[in-house]
Amino acid sequence: MINVGIVGGTGYTGVELLRILSQHPEVNIQAITSRNEVGTKVTELFTSLRGQINLKFCDPTEANLDQCDLVFFATPNGIAMQQAKALLNAGTRVIDLAADFRIKDVSEWEKWYGMSHASPELIAEAVYGLPEINRDKVINARLVANPGCYPTAVQLGFLPLIEAGIVDENHLIADVKSGVSGAGRKADVHILHAEASDNFKAYGVPGHRHLPEIKQGLANIAGKSIGLTFVPHLTPMIRGIHATLYARLSANTDLQTLYEQRYINEPFVDILPAGKHPETRSVRGSNICRIAVHRPQNSDTVVVLSVTDNLVKGAAGQAVQNMNLMFGFQETLGIQHIPLLP
Amino acid sequence: MINVGIVGGTGYTGVELLRILSQHPEVNIQAITSRNEVGTKVTELFTSLRGQINLKFCDPTEANLDQCDLVFFATPNGIAMQQAKALLNAGTRVIDLAADFRIKDVSEWEKWYGMSHASPELIAEAVYGLPEINRDKVINARLVANPGCYPTAVQLGFLPLIEAGIVDENHLIADVKSGVSGAGRKADVHILHAEASDNFKAYGVPGHRHLPEIKQGLANIAGKSIGLTFVPHLTPMIRGIHATLYARLSANTDLQTLYEQRYINEPFVDILPAGKHPETRSVRGSNICRIAVHRPQNSDTVVVLSVTDNLVKGAAGQAVQNMNLMFGFQETLGIQHIPLLP
Amino acid sequence: MINVGIVGGTGYTGVELLRILSQHPEVNIQAITSRNEVGTKVTELFTSLRGQINLKFCDPTEANLDQCDLVFFATPNGIAMQQAKALLNAGTRVIDLAADFRIKDVSEWEKWYGMSHASPELIAEAVYGLPEINRDKVINARLVANPGCYPTAVQLGFLPLIEAGIVDENHLIADVKSGVSGAGRKADVHILHAEASDNFKAYGVPGHRHLPEIKQGLANIAGKSIGLTFVPHLTPMIRGIHATLYARLSANTDLQTLYEQRYINEPFVDILPAGKHPETRSVRGSNICRIAVHRPQNSDTVVVLSVTDNLVKGAAGQAVQNMNLMFGFQETLGIQHIPLLP
Amino acid sequence: MINVGIVGGTGYTGVELLRILSQHPEVNIQAITSRNEVGTKVTELFTSLRGQINLKFCDPTEANLDQCDLVFFATPNGIAMQQAKALLNAGTRVIDLAADFRIKDVSEWEKWYGMSHASPELIAEAVYGLPEINRDKVINARLVANPGCYPTAVQLGFLPLIEAGIVDENHLIADVKSGVSGAGRKADVHILHAEASDNFKAYGVPGHRHLPEIKQGLANIAGKSIGLTFVPHLTPMIRGIHATLYARLSANTDLQTLYEQRYINEPFVDILPAGKHPETRSVRGSNICRIAVHRPQNSDTVVVLSVTDNLVKGAAGQAVQNMNLMFGFQETLGIQHIPLLP
Repeated sequence: MINVGIVGGTGYTGVELLRILSQHPEVNIQAITSRNEVGTKVTELFTSLRGQINLKFCDPTEANLDQCDLVFFATPNGIAMQQAKALLNAGTRVIDLAADFRIKDVSEWEKWYGMSHASPELIAEAVYGLPEINRDKVINARLVANPGCYPTAVQLGFLPLIEAGIVDENHLIADVKSGVSGAGRKADVHILHAEASDNFKAYGVPGHRHLPEIKQGLANIAGKSIGLTFVPHLTPMIRGIHATLYARLSANTDLQTLYEQRYINEPFVDILPAGKHPETRSVRGSNICRIAVHRPQNSDTVVVLSVTDNLVKGAAGQAVQNMNLMFGFQETLGIQHIPLLP
Repeated sequence: MINVGIVGGTGYTGVELLRILSQHPEVNIQAITSRNEVGTKVTELFTSLRGQINLKFCDPTEANLDQCDLVFFATPNGIAMQQAKALLNAGTRVIDLAADFRIKDVSEWEKWYGMSHASPELIAEAVYGLPEINRDKVINARLVANPGCYPTAVQLGFLPLIEAGIVDENHLIADVKSGVSGAGRKADVHILHAEASDNFKAYGVPGHRHLPEIKQGLANIAGKSIGLTFVPHLTPMIRGIHATLYARLSANTDLQTLYEQRYINEPFVDILPAGKHPETRSVRGSNICRIAVHRPQNSDTVVVLSVTDNLVKGAAGQAVQNMNLMFGFQETLGIQHIPLLP
Repeated sequence: MINVGIVGGTGYTGVELLRILSQHPEVNIQAITSRNEVGTKVTELFTSLRGQINLKFCDPTEANLDQCDLVFFATPNGIAMQQAKALLNAGTRVIDLAADFRIKDVSEWEKWYGMSHASPELIAEAVYGLPEINRDKVINARLVANPGCYPTAVQLGFLPLIEAGIVDENHLIADVKSGVSGAGRKADVHILHAEASDNFKAYGVPGHRHLPEIKQGLANIAGKSIGLTFVPHLTPMIRGIHATLYARLSANTDLQTLYEQRYINEPFVDILPAGKHPETRSVRGSNICRIAVHRPQNSDTVVVLSVTDNLVKGAAGQAVQNMNLMFGFQETLGIQHIPLLP
Repeated sequence: MINVGIVGGTGYTGVELLRILSQHPEVNIQAITSRNEVGTKVTELFTSLRGQINLKFCDPTEANLDQCDLVFFATPNGIAMQQAKALLNAGTRVIDLAADFRIKDVSEWEKWYGMSHASPELIAEAVYGLPEINRDKVINARLVANPGCYPTAVQLGFLPLIEAGIVDENHLIADVKSGVSGAGRKADVHILHAEASDNFKAYGVPGHRHLPEIKQGLANIAGKSIGLTFVPHLTPMIRGIHATLYARLSANTDLQTLYEQRYINEPFVDILPAGKHPETRSVRGSNICRIAVHRPQNSDTVVVLSVTDNLVKGAAGQAVQNMNLMFGFQETLGIQHIPLLP
């Protein structure tokens, strides 16, 4: 049993952490903070949690977070980098669900995120928390940078191809579609129901913050820099990411076997039978990434379809998966929810 | 640990039973039948269940259902009434999620459902499985008639008022809105996405099959016949029922206290604080019914708001709640899922 | 050909006015104002209007509105009451799509809207712009108070019953469901797609600002005060209002004939054949109100179903209908769009 | 004024033709046929058309279609090929909204559509009705093959690049997303609201019938065969297609100028300013195709975003555009609807 704190619990990753952690058998939620909602009962904001949790949001300064075994940052970018150091020094481990520690190149990070990094000295130590790649490092990490939602679906989809070295890694294409919850629980006109419903659009084509994160991840796998065109889209659903990935094959392989073998021991990656197409609802509310691999018309272009729930495997669920690894619990503990279908 | 069978597992109540029962600690799913899908793996139809269940749909005649401790009928109306008797005679208990045993007046049932009843002799024995009213009878029942989705939300909403005898029970109004999954997983044009999305309509205003079921239930509580206007509506969402109930007060009472006291020991009925409005997503995927009671402008009209997930408390979840009662398990076992929000 | 101005053109009623007026054969749009978007091209904000309109948003003080024949206020409540007087004095007629001039009782208005009225002396003159009731007054009006979206659907639905004096007007019930655009194009968390989609809820049950407006309108018809329980709901669609109205019959009449006769000459009210149920998409994008009247189970409760597009007949379309009347154009000119289905 | 007939008017392209043609100033709708709905009033099926059209569906054999100036086939594939010849012989011109005459290579057509072609001799004569490419031929055509919805958006998006010869035409990628109405008004489980809503998936990756149509069109432009990977997706909205197109640049050009110049005289193609992203609702209900062209991160991969309403520019609207050309009306007559936003 460990004591955990959550910083910034009023967003969608916050409420999703609460949904998962409040029924996790090895976790006691000690505190949840929010500067704007100090004193408000969590269930006042999130009726879905009535009967599950009795905490009130508290001020970060009064949360005694340094007495937690682990603190999750479910905050906007730029918060964790200011507070992580003190917690680590106090012996508290940290998982940041925002982007503060994802990019190893500080100046690259500062360019994309538009601010100076407050703790550049921690970046090297931070472990990028994609267990399917970094499991061993996560186990011993003090500080985990939880991956972004797009980067999770895209990297898991490209991984076997890049590892096998059988595609032109200079011209990868990731056409990715996200549900609206990916934009967060914040009042922006473009994600109003009357704007985003019955509508579809691409955005950020000139450049999106997840581009350098994906490129760094794929380059690490490839052992060299890679070229990627990344086009995110907003699709009128609440949860779900669907990545459609394209690469030019440079060698012939049994792609189905390649994918099945790569992920045969992964509890949260499911390779569909040949010819199938995953759908986002087949992972709704669960920590699973389902993948299918196609080679249409037997051409030299491989098409990979990869779906996740952006709030679970793309955020809170993966954070708990990392927590399980860090504290020696069974990796799947508390995150085995069956997808909600329909 | 009990062995259960599911007859008719290809609809939404079927897949929802599978979601719940496959993780229920006291249940072994012995067989699931479907005449149309004999030999098909369950996970072929419902990708969400991959890794959770290994069964194939089998023919009802080869399922050895009479060796189960319990059989759920998740079939269209008119099936359970043909097969229940043989199972009961073999010592197998039965929960029918369809309407075959809900109405005590056979001729009334035959009028609304347009067929002759195949087992009228079983109707008297069947227990109407609304635990909040019939818990004691459910415990010892051989045959449970699981309530309809509308009747569950409406009866739980009206119950305290009728029991207290403080409303004009001759002029009750139930204006109820249902998500589209309530119409089932069948190919009908009017529930296509392109028809039902971004659209709202009433239907069945002249008469809906759930009308006699609700009237029977409320009459039982009142101890006399009641008058009800029931207007169902189709709303563009997948899951959820929202009942807005109106009644004329004939006496003055503290309505908030009345509701809180009535349901204080009910694990699956949650009375919201005064002034609140429940929303359907606050119960999505869960077995909870949330209720708020209002008296707008201090007039003599009381307004009750009652929400459920039509596939859980309105169908599969309530069936498992009944199962738990019938077999002496903790009533909440295996149905404590936290609602999925957002 | 008249010159019109639009004050506050960045909301949904604004863009809807532009959609209609930019193709209206008798209208020249002289100016559209927005304090926040001065200098922005209208088509920059509303791509749908590219090629249709070349205006930029301008500052209200530079719009020469007093040289228009007519000014529409598509502003939040409390703006028109400050500016209408000067325009009227300059000979410019005014249609306010907000609520400033809808309620005749100033103190009642001030209670519900939470501000002091800036032009109480204009209230008596203002004509409530529901043509089906007030057509003759609209024709000669200088100042029209365009009805609210809920009040339009509810009043047109109840009108024949109240006029005929055949219902208990002390206990009317209006259970009304609105699409999310009714909440406006403003950044509020509760109308985000991730909040409002796949969700249904009532709101404002203790009291909603449209309650006094509806009660005033129905009382005017009845010739005495009326009693109304009004429960608005938010439904996950973009456009559309569905009013389900309940009243106790005090006399026997052929309701179908009553409704057909009352609206036989109304170009924008369509009475469906007996037994039918209107759906909101059957009026999407159009100025039509479709109504069906039912008497379920032959009881003494009449059920009226009334649907409109909240942005057209419930706002901009009705405003143009009023404009047509005020300036002697054919009443239907420029607002004969066929609903967009599916 | 011409007399037109519509064969197969009960689907979405049928009702959309009726929406457009019933207000077209040069068209008299003489007959609309449906074998299944003989004698049913059109407005019984499509309430949206009440007051606009008085026809009943009639049997094709009694429609005197050969006395029409023009017959639209809004039928499933395989119908027009059986009936077109007799009509053409009678002097009636034909526009087929299905696929019967789109593919010039008969055996290719028969392979993808799984049937023998009933009128192979007409294929050569048929004009592929994409006015932006074939305007001159359409004007004199007796028989027009109206393009598919995906092919319209994809071809208009790729056209300037292929004409200019500045991309590797052997490795084009079209990642396209469609609203659910594209699947038609037919009762299929996978397009139910409860299946398709809040869900996203690719389908037909191994091969989709629109692949050969697109390849033929692009090859005609290129003057040589081309290579294309085409991945269609189902997105939870009613109307709209969003094509995201990828190509490798083989030469340097000002892409923005290239696109603007190519379409400068096209009334229904709108090139957005540099840096913009079109959204499907910006064309909802209209005949417009909006396109943006990007070169992200200044790499050698060009990204084109192309949106249409699949039922208008992707079907009925384009058919009327072709009709206007064939009969010498102004090309934009009757199809200048402003998109419905929100």
